[in-house]
Amino acid sequence: MAKSPEVEHPDKALGWAARDTSGVLSPFNFSRRVTGEKDVKFKVLYCGICHSDLHMILNEWGTTTYPLIPGHEIVGVVTEVGSKVQKFKVGDKVGVGCMVGACLSCDSCTNHLENYCPKAILTYGAKYYDGTTTYGGYSDTMVSDEHFVVRIPENLPLDSSAPLLCAGITVYSPLRFYGLDKPGMHVGVVGLGGLGHVAVKFAKAMGVKVTVISTSPGKKKEAMEHLGADSFLVSKEQDQMQAAQGTMDGIIDTVSAQHPLLPLIGLLKTQGKLVMVGAPEKPLELPVFPLIMARKLLGGSCIGGMKETQEMIDFAAKHNIKADIEVIPIDYVNTAMERLQKADVRYRFVIDIANTLKSNA
Amino acid sequence: MAKSPEVEHPDKALGWAARDTSGVLSPFNFSRRVTGEKDVKFKVLYCGICHSDLHMILNEWGTTTYPLIPGHEIVGVVTEVGSKVQKFKVGDKVGVGCMVGACLSCDSCTNHLENYCPKAILTYGAKYYDGTTTYGGYSDTMVSDEHFVVRIPENLPLDSSAPLLCAGITVYSPLRFYGLDKPGMHVGVVGLGGLGHVAVKFAKAMGVKVTVISTSPGKKKEAMEHLGADSFLVSKEQDQMQAAQGTMDGIIDTVSAQHPLLPLIGLLKTQGKLVMVGAPEKPLELPVFPLIMARKLLGGSCIGGMKETQEMIDFAAKHNIKADIEVIPIDYVNTAMERLQKADVRYRFVIDIANTLKSNA
Repeated sequence: MAKSPEVEHPDKALGWAARDTSGVLSPFNFSRRVTGEKDVKFKVLYCGICHSDLHMILNEWGTTTYPLIPGHEIVGVVTEVGSKVQKFKVGDKVGVGCMVGACLSCDSCTNHLENYCPKAILTYGAKYYDGTTTYGGYSDTMVSDEHFVVRIPENLPLDSSAPLLCAGITVYSPLRFYGLDKPGMHVGVVGLGGLGHVAVKFAKAMGVKVTVISTSPGKKKEAMEHLGADSFLVSKEQDQMQAAQGTMDGIIDTVSAQHPLLPLIGLLKTQGKLVMVGAPEKPLELPVFPLIMARKLLGGSCIGGMKETQEMIDFAAKHNIKADIEVIPIDYVNTAMERLQKADVRYRFVIDIANTLKSNA
Repeated sequence: MAKSPEVEHPDKALGWAARDTSGVLSPFNFSRRVTGEKDVKFKVLYCGICHSDLHMILNEWGTTTYPLIPGHEIVGVVTEVGSKVQKFKVGDKVGVGCMVGACLSCDSCTNHLENYCPKAILTYGAKYYDGTTTYGGYSDTMVSDEHFVVRIPENLPLDSSAPLLCAGITVYSPLRFYGLDKPGMHVGVVGLGGLGHVAVKFAKAMGVKVTVISTSPGKKKEAMEHLGADSFLVSKEQDQMQAAQGTMDGIIDTVSAQHPLLPLIGLLKTQGKLVMVGAPEKPLELPVFPLIMARKLLGGSCIGGMKETQEMIDFAAKHNIKADIEVIPIDYVNTAMERLQKADVRYRFVIDIANTLKSNA
């Protein structure tokens, strides 16, 4: 019989876990493995709340096993390194994003795309190599193979850089891969949430002209004055949308709700690219004709590889890019999840783990 | 008042035109313009029947004006050239495909993509610069600016090379543009009709492994033994489709009927590309998740530019690629259209214009 989470590993740990599809999180005693020779152990200081954490605690994707400790935007300070660790030492500021393992030998892995490895191991709710369950960053400590650890540059604040490990790389990678990173280009960002607001910042730092496309006219001032977008389109205003037809080299679509693609495809220039990073549950309606007539394409993108994640963090440090966050104590997390469900956050909750996660023993 | 087609230009011409949405074609006296200084005039020898000719004579896309002379897979021999024509002389074997004009100054045109020029002028049923209607290749003569004329290499038979001017370039261009032309790659071809059968031939000549994906098990022998495909999948056989999951670098989808995309996306490797060249009238259902999880993309492609069309014809000549055709007399054209509607042709009808189109005067 498998040992319980509390005793399966030698090192005691405390997190907050969801126990069932109610999704309610509560304190959970578990354990972390002994720091292996290639492992980095770190004290978790902050952990961002990603929208997928919400999907997962509610088992909305049907893949959840309970108890589940969410959290894949994890930053902290190294407390121990294994004997063969080369890149990190005690005291380093580090982070872990969405994955903690991959085969490292398939075509994807050997091309620095561990994120597309069929055997990639997610940071929480997955089976690790040793057969135990992975637990995420709503917890006091983290252990990971150094390959999946990134260095947080000195000048980046730890709290507002945490969301870059998922939200940041999710938008940075497609801007690079789909060639939407050339100065002077015009890129649309659909949806101004956790992903969208950092997409605006990264694209602007790349020298790109950015237009935010949103259903909410009320976000215009914020998008342009605070986030630095160049223009703003209300997606339901047909006149605005019509006037912007054929003007964009690409669009990063962060919306995971059902929404029509045709108006977005229309905004693209010939050979423009619509990149989906939000994943609607049901299929969307795809009009094929406008893709054919102007060689447009619609592509997906999912986080990024470890090399690119480090590159993204270094780029963020160089250009002073941070997520806009609301720091919360751990015992606010269930309220935060309710607010997140209503999109009531600008733009990312980050849990202050170190100061608020206390053993209730 | 505009002059009638018979007298609007000086040079008398004879074609077959559809007069209304019945789509029935019958002899039609019209006229061709005087050969301009950059124009090439040629005697039409053969003209392929493209499926879009059928759509157009029936006004299925809602854009048809009657009388309509279809035909955009036109080959013949030059009979006259304008004073500033540089590339052609009397007696040359030439062809005209889907377009006879473009602005030649926009971004697309200056990048040899006249096919994506917003002002591109279609070979038939469009307005030419002088305000007159363009008439296609179901006719005895053709006049075109030399920019839109391609040279047919000596070793290519004129009848079976005619379909390359539309069907050929339609599949050649995306194989090149989407990088599906590397020896050793594995490409799927969906649908084995006019487009599909030449897609197999071009991909094979590029050194690519080709799998035909079809609803018709009866096409397997033909696809593999005659066309040279490496394998064959019956799209409705789930076991076959399942076994081929994740094996293809790209797919050229030539089907214009409604069909599910999810099984095709599943056949792609990580970062695989599904290219649509057939245009279903209604939107297709697009599952976004599988695109995101493996950075797959779905793109369109529409014929090709003039430079690439010449390159395609030269490549066909080098590799002895011809369409498989059934040559018909012009007075069989209405029967051919009925058969085309039932997909009863292997794989392209080509009208023997020179020997069968006689003045009924």
